[in-house]
Amino acid sequence: MPPKTGKKHAPMKNRSQNQRRDPQRVAAPTAAPTAAHRHVAAPKPPQNGYFIWGRHAVFAALDNPERRVAQIYTASDDGESEINACLARLPADRRGALPAIQRIDRQRLDAIGGAHDKAVHQAVAAAVWPLDPPHLDDFLATHRGTHNLRLLLLDQLSDPRNVGAIMRSARAFGVSAVITTFRNAAEESGTLARAASGALDHLPYLRVTNLARAIETLQQEGICVAGLAGDGDMAVADLATFDRLAIVLGAEGSGLRRLSRDHCDQLVRIDIDDQSDSLNVSNAAAIALYAASQTRPL
Amino acid sequence: MPPKTGKKHAPMKNRSQNQRRDPQRVAAPTAAPTAAHRHVAAPKPPQNGYFIWGRHAVFAALDNPERRVAQIYTASDDGESEINACLARLPADRRGALPAIQRIDRQRLDAIGGAHDKAVHQAVAAAVWPLDPPHLDDFLATHRGTHNLRLLLLDQLSDPRNVGAIMRSARAFGVSAVITTFRNAAEESGTLARAASGALDHLPYLRVTNLARAIETLQQEGICVAGLAGDGDMAVADLATFDRLAIVLGAEGSGLRRLSRDHCDQLVRIDIDDQSDSLNVSNAAAIALYAASQTRPL
Repeated sequence: MPPKTGKKHAPMKNRSQNQRRDPQRVAAPTAAPTAAHRHVAAPKPPQNGYFIWGRHAVFAALDNPERRVAQIYTASDDGESEINACLARLPADRRGALPAIQRIDRQRLDAIGGAHDKAVHQAVAAAVWPLDPPHLDDFLATHRGTHNLRLLLLDQLSDPRNVGAIMRSARAFGVSAVITTFRNAAEESGTLARAASGALDHLPYLRVTNLARAIETLQQEGICVAGLAGDGDMAVADLATFDRLAIVLGAEGSGLRRLSRDHCDQLVRIDIDDQSDSLNVSNAAAIALYAASQTRPL
Repeated sequence: MPPKTGKKHAPMKNRSQNQRRDPQRVAAPTAAPTAAHRHVAAPKPPQNGYFIWGRHAVFAALDNPERRVAQIYTASDDGESEINACLARLPADRRGALPAIQRIDRQRLDAIGGAHDKAVHQAVAAAVWPLDPPHLDDFLATHRGTHNLRLLLLDQLSDPRNVGAIMRSARAFGVSAVITTFRNAAEESGTLARAASGALDHLPYLRVTNLARAIETLQQEGICVAGLAGDGDMAVADLATFDRLAIVLGAEGSGLRRLSRDHCDQLVRIDIDDQSDSLNVSNAAAIALYAASQTRPL
């Protein structure tokens, strides 16, 4: 099959923009519906906001009292019923704070996700503003006595799909927060939210200025900080032995930055085939979280 | 920061297209080369072929004697040296069968991966034809006496990034083949190859007409077939106890099809938080493969 290249996409987008403004199209009544369906514009996100799509992601956003929602969209009766069922489960004050459901053309909804995430909105979307996660110190203060604590630190992971998938696994394995830097990290976005499949609205995505300093702060709270590294001297299975644990993941290729690495209490490895390249970072995260969730051998 | 939505991309592209046609810009001789660099066309893939990009994927393709290569592209001196170093390691007959390296404009290389995979080609790409994987029966005949055999079956997984990431993990954990159906499965493609990070050229990606019948064939060869399912009665850690094992993964959302499920010897679960949605399928695969690779408790 021919690959989807930029060459193919760019002219298509341009063409659709041109056609939309083509006066002939507006004049011709028979051609109009087809053309209009094919080349519709996505709705505009609110200022400083973005779109979330897909049922898990949208319903988690509606369910999250901290999430400011500008619009709720659906393109189908089923979608509308499901959103209504979701709203019916919410406390009255949250329900009252949400906008009315807006019916939208399916093609306009298709346009929200962009070419590469098309057809995965499951007929629902929402325009939202980013969350306002707690400060690390405040978060830690509320987790001072927590046993079996699991945190995840991301050292310059910029791919929103990877970060979203990591948040999804983090939630599945009882992680209390995902911590990353303000700079060189994936921002909250529709792509991240969709890959997170609701986890973005269930799990704080904390930002810090300096990851090495955040590691020190965690250590002062009695949290063992274990960095994932191919040359680690501890097997990943041993993560299960720690009561209060933060796992640090580096970017693919470059791995942990030197300063992050030097601050870790442990360097932990996943044993893989010698001939093999490293694992995808979200897969490595899933394995580490699974290993850390196992019954402790001690 | 504003997220990257379809809506945001379209006007940006449109704007740049307009700029190119702006007579003022074309008239200015200093501006012309920049404009030309910005809007170049990707090279065309050969008929029935596709592009591979990224160093791991390209070098694995060159290294694979079964891979037919139409063109080798690079956009930098570093890329050229690395390709030459890769070629120098190959047997003479393989090297002789490969085309000469072609220098290409970086912007033309950018266009190959498409808008969403831009800047990840690492200055190298190749135009290739799909592989011709062995028939399942022939593959099994060559693995009749193999101990600690690990196979992976994909039941209608269509996302090439997920399938690629799964192949990458499969290779890392010593899997001998990934088996899927001809229909409703991700085709070999540049996106798949890139996510596989070379694994597509190291590990056969076998296609069968009927997955249930393939499961029966594996069982006749003394291979235990374990399907991953949220309600499985065996913990995923117990996969380590099987000598000859095939793990079956279903599509996200729908899971294993009824017929595939009914054919499995075991249904295996990954224990996750009750409140949580399921895992991303490539993350679930990575956990299952890790678990199956651990020292056996027996």
